[in-house]
Amino acid sequence: MQPLPGFRDFLPNDCARRNYIFAKWREVARRYGFVEWDGPVLEPTELYTKKSGPEIVGQLFNFTDKGEREVALRPELTPTLARVVAAHDREFKKPLKWFSIPQCFRYEKQQRGRLREHFQFNADIIGEASVDADVEATALCIDLLRGFGFSASDVVVRVSDREFWIDFLRAQNVPEEKWQETLQIIDKSEREAREKTAAKLGPLAEPVFKILDGKGSSEKLDRLVTALGARGLAEFVQIDLGIVRGLAYYSGVVFEAFDRGGKLRALAGGGRYDKLIDQLSDGAVSLPAIGFAMGDVVLGELIGEIPAAKALMEIAIASERDLDIYIVIAKEERRADAFAQVQSLRDGGYRVDYPLIPAKVGKQFQTAEQLGARVAILFGDEWPQVKVKDLRSGEQTLVAHPEVAAKLTALFSA
Amino acid sequence: MQPLPGFRDFLPNDCARRNYIFAKWREVARRYGFVEWDGPVLEPTELYTKKSGPEIVGQLFNFTDKGEREVALRPELTPTLARVVAAHDREFKKPLKWFSIPQCFRYEKQQRGRLREHFQFNADIIGEASVDADVEATALCIDLLRGFGFSASDVVVRVSDREFWIDFLRAQNVPEEKWQETLQIIDKSEREAREKTAAKLGPLAEPVFKILDGKGSSEKLDRLVTALGARGLAEFVQIDLGIVRGLAYYSGVVFEAFDRGGKLRALAGGGRYDKLIDQLSDGAVSLPAIGFAMGDVVLGELIGEIPAAKALMEIAIASERDLDIYIVIAKEERRADAFAQVQSLRDGGYRVDYPLIPAKVGKQFQTAEQLGARVAILFGDEWPQVKVKDLRSGEQTLVAHPEVAAKLTALFSA
Repeated sequence: MQPLPGFRDFLPNDCARRNYIFAKWREVARRYGFVEWDGPVLEPTELYTKKSGPEIVGQLFNFTDKGEREVALRPELTPTLARVVAAHDREFKKPLKWFSIPQCFRYEKQQRGRLREHFQFNADIIGEASVDADVEATALCIDLLRGFGFSASDVVVRVSDREFWIDFLRAQNVPEEKWQETLQIIDKSEREAREKTAAKLGPLAEPVFKILDGKGSSEKLDRLVTALGARGLAEFVQIDLGIVRGLAYYSGVVFEAFDRGGKLRALAGGGRYDKLIDQLSDGAVSLPAIGFAMGDVVLGELIGEIPAAKALMEIAIASERDLDIYIVIAKEERRADAFAQVQSLRDGGYRVDYPLIPAKVGKQFQTAEQLGARVAILFGDEWPQVKVKDLRSGEQTLVAHPEVAAKLTALFSA
Repeated sequence: MQPLPGFRDFLPNDCARRNYIFAKWREVARRYGFVEWDGPVLEPTELYTKKSGPEIVGQLFNFTDKGEREVALRPELTPTLARVVAAHDREFKKPLKWFSIPQCFRYEKQQRGRLREHFQFNADIIGEASVDADVEATALCIDLLRGFGFSASDVVVRVSDREFWIDFLRAQNVPEEKWQETLQIIDKSEREAREKTAAKLGPLAEPVFKILDGKGSSEKLDRLVTALGARGLAEFVQIDLGIVRGLAYYSGVVFEAFDRGGKLRALAGGGRYDKLIDQLSDGAVSLPAIGFAMGDVVLGELIGEIPAAKALMEIAIASERDLDIYIVIAKEERRADAFAQVQSLRDGGYRVDYPLIPAKVGKQFQTAEQLGARVAILFGDEWPQVKVKDLRSGEQTLVAHPEVAAKLTALFSA
């Protein structure tokens, strides 16, 4: 018995890693003043075809529901965001700084770093067209990665500008209906033999490669990098006009985050999409926006490979997982007294466990250590005193049972 | 543009309430030493028909995927739990104390407290058949409710015992193939006119009503209630043999939690299912188990109705949501200095926001208050000093900019 191909079971260790990633995403996003929202996992299929064309259906988990509705598991969150923002436009003061952690689904061939479901952090700033919003969005992307313990020698955010390329295409007299195709060729060029790209580009090959090989920039990108420098984040960012991103709707700054080793797929990617909300809401609401997404799968791989990041994760996981106190019941006559103690300690916020059924004292101490307990409290012959044992130092103290709480406060604050 | 019927958008306020419920569930479960896991949202349809029979398909969001697999959005987590526990039986020491917070889906008529998707807290103790595990499971259910601020005058957990009824049916010579049907009639009797139930029960009506009207119990239930009493939870629990629960697989203690007012659907429900893992794993793994689920929808309604619970939620939400510091940029020449300050404060763990684009100082202070900021820091003519304003007391201090961090530590620890 297996999960479906491309879907994951999250056993306790996997779930702890997932929770760690989610908690870090939330923590950093909140430091930036972003607020969390979410949409449904299932949406009308039309929401996605409207944005991406009918070809997207081939990659969806889509079906007809029992009410004859065409529906799909969400492949991404942006169309839902446009729907929600358009429907509630008047309720929220702009700019919005919103984030979400949706699970998204695509029916496609599985590859390393690419399953049929994944979780992705999404952040969007809606209602502000200036490069100042681009600065905040890229800074958040960098600080999320820093939050996981990556340094500038581990990761880089490559920034580019769609407008630069649109200006170029216009100057080269490329007809507008060819723009999207040409941009996709440039987007792929990094992963393709130069001759192949050149053949596709034809007469455009020479000027395009000149740009890709050079250190080209735009005024907007220079402002972006200067502002990130004012935050002390310069070493994490690199202007790279080779980043174009495949999707048609990007309209300004675009960026992607990578491991410096270049071994993995992109860690994150996004950009400005000033016309998309207008398009998806049929012109009802027009708001400029910039957003990006960071998936959990490639990120998890890189955390596993960078020792500092892995250590940070393991410390956080242990502190979420480990028990505070294990109650050892050495005499079954003391079980009811132990229950009262268990209850009052849990009420006090401690993580507490005990043997559900009678067990040998040695085995109980073993369980206490396996569960990572810091302290064991033994209920036995010493009653109405109990033995409080610090499982790190091995030190034991006899304590009158009403004094246990005070003793623990001392131990845990030491 | 709307979400699908029975599906919810989670705008920031809704999402904050959802996060509050999830965080409380996690916190209390961890105090009990439960560890979190999860399974896929999409599973083979067979996983559900195997447990509940082919009739369940009528209530599923099910479809044929592009690989010709029959799949369904999970209506519940127990079949996945059985699959995962059977597949990884040897890796984990028993008893397992596992919890999860899955989103579950049912295609059914919408009613109050019942949508087509909901989140539910699931907790299961696997590998321990004794009533001591039943005690821990029901105590967790009670403490989850207490965690939300409900008192014993707000909620009650009604406990019953399937074995009591099986013994009764046997004593009354009811043939085994009639048991499930009879149990369902008894389960429904509380919500049905007595004559109607009596007609269905025939000659069994008299002895059944005698039990339902009396104060019947079983030795096991007495032990359960005594042990909960030792924890100080007696006033939250009530023996009530009228609780039977519809599902065929329950094999021992069963329980349901309700609001005392009796206005809402059940808040939680569960029970012992000692043969289900064996059945679902085709006999590969046989483990006794008890578990329960608590949904987010009815719970959310009751929180809204009980003032103490609502107040507790609102305090928690505000403390998660509110900004710590708003940076006021009174002179644009100071923007780069402000950026450096924003970055170092966020790095220090504060939640910090600032105006993305130039704005009037008065408007910036307004935004600071709207975002719940505790402190505003003004960058203006006073540079290299900045004005630190406590937005609660209104007190302002001029501080040399390198001293800001120390000043804030003092303010926030006051």
